[in-house]
Amino acid sequence: MRIEVDAELVERYIFELARHGAYGETGVWRVAYSPEWVDAQNQVTGWLEDAGLEARNDAVGNVWGRLAGTEDGPVVATGSHIDSQNPGGRYDGALGVIGGIVALRALREQFGEPRRTLEAVSLCEEEASRFHATNFWGSRAIVGAIGPDEAERIRSLDGTTTIGEAMEAVGLDPGQIPEAARDDIETWIELHIEQGPILEDEGLPVGVVDAITSITHYVVELTGRSDHAGARPMQGRLDPLAGFAEIVSAVVGVALESGPPAVTTIGRVQVEPNIPSAVPDKVTFTLDSRHPDQRAVEAQHAEQERLMREIAERRGLRISWTKPLDLPACPCDPDLVATLERAAKEQGIAYRRMHSGAGHDTQNMAKIARVAMVFARSKDGRSHTPEEFTSVEDAVAAIRVLTGALHELAY
Amino acid sequence: MRIEVDAELVERYIFELARHGAYGETGVWRVAYSPEWVDAQNQVTGWLEDAGLEARNDAVGNVWGRLAGTEDGPVVATGSHIDSQNPGGRYDGALGVIGGIVALRALREQFGEPRRTLEAVSLCEEEASRFHATNFWGSRAIVGAIGPDEAERIRSLDGTTTIGEAMEAVGLDPGQIPEAARDDIETWIELHIEQGPILEDEGLPVGVVDAITSITHYVVELTGRSDHAGARPMQGRLDPLAGFAEIVSAVVGVALESGPPAVTTIGRVQVEPNIPSAVPDKVTFTLDSRHPDQRAVEAQHAEQERLMREIAERRGLRISWTKPLDLPACPCDPDLVATLERAAKEQGIAYRRMHSGAGHDTQNMAKIARVAMVFARSKDGRSHTPEEFTSVEDAVAAIRVLTGALHELAY
Repeated sequence: MRIEVDAELVERYIFELARHGAYGETGVWRVAYSPEWVDAQNQVTGWLEDAGLEARNDAVGNVWGRLAGTEDGPVVATGSHIDSQNPGGRYDGALGVIGGIVALRALREQFGEPRRTLEAVSLCEEEASRFHATNFWGSRAIVGAIGPDEAERIRSLDGTTTIGEAMEAVGLDPGQIPEAARDDIETWIELHIEQGPILEDEGLPVGVVDAITSITHYVVELTGRSDHAGARPMQGRLDPLAGFAEIVSAVVGVALESGPPAVTTIGRVQVEPNIPSAVPDKVTFTLDSRHPDQRAVEAQHAEQERLMREIAERRGLRISWTKPLDLPACPCDPDLVATLERAAKEQGIAYRRMHSGAGHDTQNMAKIARVAMVFARSKDGRSHTPEEFTSVEDAVAAIRVLTGALHELAY
Repeated sequence: MRIEVDAELVERYIFELARHGAYGETGVWRVAYSPEWVDAQNQVTGWLEDAGLEARNDAVGNVWGRLAGTEDGPVVATGSHIDSQNPGGRYDGALGVIGGIVALRALREQFGEPRRTLEAVSLCEEEASRFHATNFWGSRAIVGAIGPDEAERIRSLDGTTTIGEAMEAVGLDPGQIPEAARDDIETWIELHIEQGPILEDEGLPVGVVDAITSITHYVVELTGRSDHAGARPMQGRLDPLAGFAEIVSAVVGVALESGPPAVTTIGRVQVEPNIPSAVPDKVTFTLDSRHPDQRAVEAQHAEQERLMREIAERRGLRISWTKPLDLPACPCDPDLVATLERAAKEQGIAYRRMHSGAGHDTQNMAKIARVAMVFARSKDGRSHTPEEFTSVEDAVAAIRVLTGALHELAY
C-alpha cells in the first residue's frame, strides 16, 4: 500500500525550522536551551498540533506529540534531536524531528486512528555543543539515566552556566528531571541523515540501519622531556611528538588493516609547550576508535592499546589514558530492521542495510525499547557543517520508509 | 700566565642579577623593556662603573662598558643578552653579560690599561620572548640591520604594544635606532651556557665554539578535508593528521639517518577544528631543521622538502610552507678559535671544540666582526627553564678562558 508524504510540507518544515538559529546562508546555530532552541521547540509544538496530535513538553524540554491508539499497550515512538552543532546544518537531527511529525500526520490523515499508540518526539539535546558532558541529554532523561547531581555538575563549554541553570532560564525545573523517564515505549525508530558517503557512493536514497557503532574516546597523555631544539642532539631526546607520530600511524593502521567498517581518528591534539624551538614535553591527544561489532571493537582496542604502550616504552616516554566516552556497539532489533526493509520494498524505495558510524539517541533508547534507524542520503557525506545537505526527494523517501514501518507496527 | 677570576664576585653577580624578574625559586622572567629589564640594565651599569669602565647606553638600550686602549684602532668586544625567556633561568644570556664585566674588571685590575680598546656589552634583547619578530634586536641594532619600519611593525606576543612603544616607555627613542650601529668592532667573543648535554656527557667544563648552527623554521600548512569520525570510512578520507604523522616520522628520520650534528624538531602543532569526533581539516606545524655546516643543511632541507611534498601528494593533501626564520650556518674565525684554545690550555682548563646548536647574537656580530664563542657546561643540558643551572666553578672556568683570550688580543 502506497503511503503519500507531502514533499512541499517537508521542504517548508525544513526551511522554517532552519530559521530558528539561522547561521549564514545555510547554517544553523541552535544549542540546547538557547532562545533559538525555545523558538524551534515552540514551532514543533505548533506543527504537532496542526497534525492533530496531543502535544506536551516533558521535564527536560523534549516535545512529544501523541496519536492515541484504540488498544492499550506500549507505545511506538519516533523522533530525533532539535539542537545543532555550533554551527551545524539544517538536517542533522532536524530531519528526524520533521520526519516524525510528517509521518504521524500522514498516517492520521490517510489511515485514521491507529491500533497502537504512536508518538513523535523532538529531543532537547544530543550534540553536546553547548554542554560538553551531556552524553545525549534528551534520550538519557527518557531512559531515566541522568544522575541526581548532573544538572549542577555539567557546565557549559564557556564555563559560565550549568545545564540546570540553563534549564531554569527556559522555565524547566531540574528537580523534575526524573519525571521525563518513560517505561511504556516498546519500539523506537529514528530517522537521521547518514552523515557519511556510503549511500551517495552507491546511488541510494535510503539506508536501513542494522547496528550502531561503538564509540570510544581515549584521551592519551604522552610525556617526554622538553629540550632545546638545537643544543640537544637527536640521540638523547625523549621526544613525545615523534612518539605521537609513530602512534598515530600505528593506531590508524590498525583500522586500515582491519578494513571497513573499522574506523580510527585522531581529532584533537595539544602540544606543550608548543613552541617552534623546543622539543615538546607532552602531547595530549584524542583517539576515537569505532566498530559496529562489539567483539571486533574489543580486539581493535586491545591491539591499539598494545601498540601505544609498546611505542611509548621503546622510546622511554610515559603514557596514560582515560576513556571519557566508551559506548558499546548497539545492534538493532532484527524484526524491526525487517519491518523497515519490508516498508522500503512496499514503497518501492531503493535502500541498503548498513551500520551507523555515528552515535545517536537511539543507542540510549535501546535501554528501554527495541530500536532501529532509517538514514537519508547526505550530499558529499558531510555533516556538522552548514554545508550538509539532503535533497527533499531523499528526505521524503526516508520518511516514506519510516511511515510505512510505523503503519505496519501500529495499524 | 694565570689569570685570576673572583669566584665570589661571579656568584654574587649571578644571584643579584637574578633578582630582577625573579620567578619562583630559581627562575627569571625578564623580557625586553620591562621594569625588571630596566632594573637589570641599571644594575649592569653600576657593575661596569665599579669595574672602572666607562658605561653608556646606546639607542636600543644595549649597555656598554669601555676600557680604552693606548693604541687607536678597532675594538675587541664581548658580551651577551640580558633578557630571558618567559620564564627562563638565571644563566642564559646573563652569564655572558656577567662574564664580560668580570673579565674586563680582572684584566684592568691585574694588567692595567690595555693596548687595544676592550668593551663589554649587555645586549637588550635576544630571546624574542616579548616581541616575536625581533630576530636578535640588540645585535641587529649594532650591525645596523634593523629596518626603518620595524619599531612600528613588530608587535608584542599579546598584541598590545609595538616594540617602538615599549622602547619609548623606558625612555628610548626608536627614531635613533640607527645610531646604535657600530663599525669599529673587529673582534667579538660571546660567553654563553651550552644549553645542551655534550660538555656534561664528556665531563668538561668549557667548550670552544667553532661554528654556530644554521636555523630554519618552516611553518607548514597541511590541508585535507574534515569528516565525521564515524560516518566517513577510512578509505575515502583526506586526513591531514595521518599525513602529518607520516611527515614527522620522515623528516625526523632524515636527521636521525644523517647523524650528529643534524637535528630536526617539530615543536608547535595546531589542529583544526581540533575536536575528538572529527577528522581534522588542517594541521599547521613548525619544522625546526638545523646543521652547523651550510652545505649539509641545504641537502637536509632539500630531502625534507621532497619528503613532505611526496607524502602530501600521495595522500591527496595540499601542502605549503613559509620560512619565517632562515639563518645560515655561521663558521667562527679559525684564528680566534685558536686564540681561545690557547687561552684554555694556558689556564689549564679542560675543553673541547664544538659547534653551537642554538642561535646566538654572535651570528649577527659576524656581519661586522670576526667571531667565536665560549660555552660553559649546562647541568642536564637544560635551558629556557627555571631549572637551567651552571655551577660557579664552570662559570669561572669559562670566564677565565674568555679573559685569557681577551688578554692575548688586547695586551
